[in-house]
Amino acid sequence: MMQIYKILIANRAEIAVRIIRACRDLHIKSVAIYTEPDRECLHVKIADEAYQIGSDAIKGYLDIAKIIEVAKACKADAIHPGYGFLSENYEFAKACEQANIVFIGPKSEVIHKMGNKNIARKLMTQNGIPIVPGTEKLNSYSIDEIKTIAEKIGYPVILKASGGGGGRGIRVVYKQEELENAFDSCKREAFAYFKNDEVFMEKFVTNPRHIEFQILGDNYGNIIHLCERDCSIQRRHQKVIEIAPCPSISDNLRKTMGVTAVAAAKAVGYTNAGTIEFLLDDCNHFYFMEMNTRIQVEHPITEEITGIDLIVRQIRIAAGEILDLEQSDVKPRGFAIEARITAENVWKNFTPSVGKIGEYYPALGPSVRVDSHIYKDYTIPPYYDSMLAKLIVRATSYDLAVNKLERALKEFTLDIRTTIPFLIAIIRTREFRRGYFDTSFIETHLQELLEKTQDHPQENKEEIVAAIAIALEKIKKG
Amino acid sequence: MMQIYKILIANRAEIAVRIIRACRDLHIKSVAIYTEPDRECLHVKIADEAYQIGSDAIKGYLDIAKIIEVAKACKADAIHPGYGFLSENYEFAKACEQANIVFIGPKSEVIHKMGNKNIARKLMTQNGIPIVPGTEKLNSYSIDEIKTIAEKIGYPVILKASGGGGGRGIRVVYKQEELENAFDSCKREAFAYFKNDEVFMEKFVTNPRHIEFQILGDNYGNIIHLCERDCSIQRRHQKVIEIAPCPSISDNLRKTMGVTAVAAAKAVGYTNAGTIEFLLDDCNHFYFMEMNTRIQVEHPITEEITGIDLIVRQIRIAAGEILDLEQSDVKPRGFAIEARITAENVWKNFTPSVGKIGEYYPALGPSVRVDSHIYKDYTIPPYYDSMLAKLIVRATSYDLAVNKLERALKEFTLDIRTTIPFLIAIIRTREFRRGYFDTSFIETHLQELLEKTQDHPQENKEEIVAAIAIALEKIKKG
Repeated sequence: MMQIYKILIANRAEIAVRIIRACRDLHIKSVAIYTEPDRECLHVKIADEAYQIGSDAIKGYLDIAKIIEVAKACKADAIHPGYGFLSENYEFAKACEQANIVFIGPKSEVIHKMGNKNIARKLMTQNGIPIVPGTEKLNSYSIDEIKTIAEKIGYPVILKASGGGGGRGIRVVYKQEELENAFDSCKREAFAYFKNDEVFMEKFVTNPRHIEFQILGDNYGNIIHLCERDCSIQRRHQKVIEIAPCPSISDNLRKTMGVTAVAAAKAVGYTNAGTIEFLLDDCNHFYFMEMNTRIQVEHPITEEITGIDLIVRQIRIAAGEILDLEQSDVKPRGFAIEARITAENVWKNFTPSVGKIGEYYPALGPSVRVDSHIYKDYTIPPYYDSMLAKLIVRATSYDLAVNKLERALKEFTLDIRTTIPFLIAIIRTREFRRGYFDTSFIETHLQELLEKTQDHPQENKEEIVAAIAIALEKIKKG
Repeated sequence: MMQIYKILIANRAEIAVRIIRACRDLHIKSVAIYTEPDRECLHVKIADEAYQIGSDAIKGYLDIAKIIEVAKACKADAIHPGYGFLSENYEFAKACEQANIVFIGPKSEVIHKMGNKNIARKLMTQNGIPIVPGTEKLNSYSIDEIKTIAEKIGYPVILKASGGGGGRGIRVVYKQEELENAFDSCKREAFAYFKNDEVFMEKFVTNPRHIEFQILGDNYGNIIHLCERDCSIQRRHQKVIEIAPCPSISDNLRKTMGVTAVAAAKAVGYTNAGTIEFLLDDCNHFYFMEMNTRIQVEHPITEEITGIDLIVRQIRIAAGEILDLEQSDVKPRGFAIEARITAENVWKNFTPSVGKIGEYYPALGPSVRVDSHIYKDYTIPPYYDSMLAKLIVRATSYDLAVNKLERALKEFTLDIRTTIPFLIAIIRTREFRRGYFDTSFIETHLQELLEKTQDHPQENKEEIVAAIAIALEKIKKG
């Protein structure tokens, strides 16, 4: 096992802060990178070193050559890519390998295989992993041929970017008339976000649950899973609330899916942390959807139920540590739930809020964890993802965990418009309390959820901008 | 099992906030009480209802009749006493029983028995629990007779208030010349704090470790322990840092002590949460010291390793719930450490700091928990305990937990003088890292610890009062 002394974090905001904390826990120096609009972001302030990599808000975080150059110049032994940006770009992993810098993640060829949805599907099929019926890339077909293929699979179908992820480059098509437009816009979005316009088609499984398994593998072929997460509460393919373990599947199904997830990871020779995503239909049939070859936004809930620090494990595995856990050592305890608090105005179709945070009181106390990059007086730049914080709770039972999440959401106070009242409306529904919902839940209940959101005191603008005493007193009104 | 709808919290600050959060988690209404100087304390702001019970800072919190009157008037079904104040006053528990209000704690006669150290020692001896050699109350003896007794036991001896606790009413006497003064001042302090001037004497076990077991018992005779805590890091008999489980005892000794702790609790017919405190000498002999018949300051570390919410359990047990856990169900995971952050100037003999908190950034993120009643713009009143916050971390190994505690202590930022740099100096010692230290550790290493404390950047007054950007940037210097 080699010693890693310094890690460059090729990312920003919440996940960069999370990784810097892990570096500190391991007595490893941390290096932040940032673009001009991110100069005041917390990750820049708390890293041991920080380097600007350009003035454009986004481009620097995608500039492979520049990042490698900075890593070499500051003598970083390793790079952690976080999620998003270059985290699933195999060329970035390859550039690290070539520069003799440890890439904290799987090997570049594994990222390539799993990142290309066509190759991944083929590999899964070869290894007996169930996949949703679908096609390879459609780009060379005419629109009439594509229509014929869609007819054959049967509507609704879903178009997906081969290089996609994070809800980008996805279109659901319910009837033939919509297909051409959907295909064109999907291709455009795919190119804009991933510089790769390959698009393929799948049967759209109606009312599916999104169940994913956390995978951990070392460099010596040892692979285990750290249980599953239910990420069915989504809006426009973006996860909103995640739960570990899934409250609505049987132990038998959990076991079968877990074994399948490990088999899928083994099929590709996976190393480091990754996630196997499944769709689960209402007859409890499950299908491999994709593998995310990186840490996920929602990794904290797995940490809370297993007691395992995933970022620490990622770093140690990348340094060559042998995984000292067997499957039977993973003993999840209780339930954990994560709510993503985003700066959005839910009453104005979730348009992003920007501006300066004048008052900020994160939820604290028992059973609560807050992963975030914000602080009082931080100005939210308009260029990035609108997530401000991940609020995570844990408890011995699902019911108590839901109560704790509601308590913590009400304590979490800041003076810009966020999705907190909307999140509270979601977790107060009968469906959420019961623990059974599919990925269409928010969409199909949106009107009802927005009506319930209106009732919450935080909706009142005057109260939102009130000073500390009023803000704190609001908590007791819930 | 009865339903509790409303709980009055007969306490203030951190523990009141902790209990209000548990009430919210159980959908139970909370009632705060406060005295005039506590009007702005967080527990007053976040409770569902709050009532002032007098203008004197302390007296209201000790006014049994008044508290019962408020509880009746606001129709509270139950009272949680927290720690300190009336929590171990059996007359208070009795007054609750007589007023038909559920006292969240053991029965009044149990508090009486265990609260009087003489009775407790006798009871333990009768039940075969090892105790430190000592006397019953000495108040009726002449000072010459007391000197003879001390000779017989052998110096050093320790004088203790029968009704004491929390480090108050304690004097260690190393030679005869000191005895009379020590006895008189011990009596005076005992009367001042506990309205009971009974004092007894024990052999002073040199270099002992303080190991305590968390007990949980229901109203039907089921009693288990939730593992131990090592509370040996003390200053003037006040705990400073606590660890669960103890990193320096063998599994065999742990098991023996645990069985003994449960036997001690059973001997008194204990119900609800309580703590059996042992002294452990360097030959691994252990002695029953006392039982605390209430929740402890350091209960969070037990919650972190066991996953069990102790305040929630206290409330449910008081409501008549049967304990659904057996000893074998308690499966501690990893290590948790609590550091008590107090508003004290360590370089001026730990004199209390008071004043307004202008900047406050609690540590956040993975593995970190903060239990506190402070907030930005809160003015610390000079009348109370100087504890500002409990910072709790957890990890799979003791070593990683120590690293995480250091990281979190460095992140925890506020602009008044606290013990944070001193706490960092403690956990950086070889002894702390090894996990083996006795209760004299701070005293015997004080000079060395203070010297190391000086090195920390937080020592610089200019930096302490700096604004947010500077405060946040400080973190990276560590």
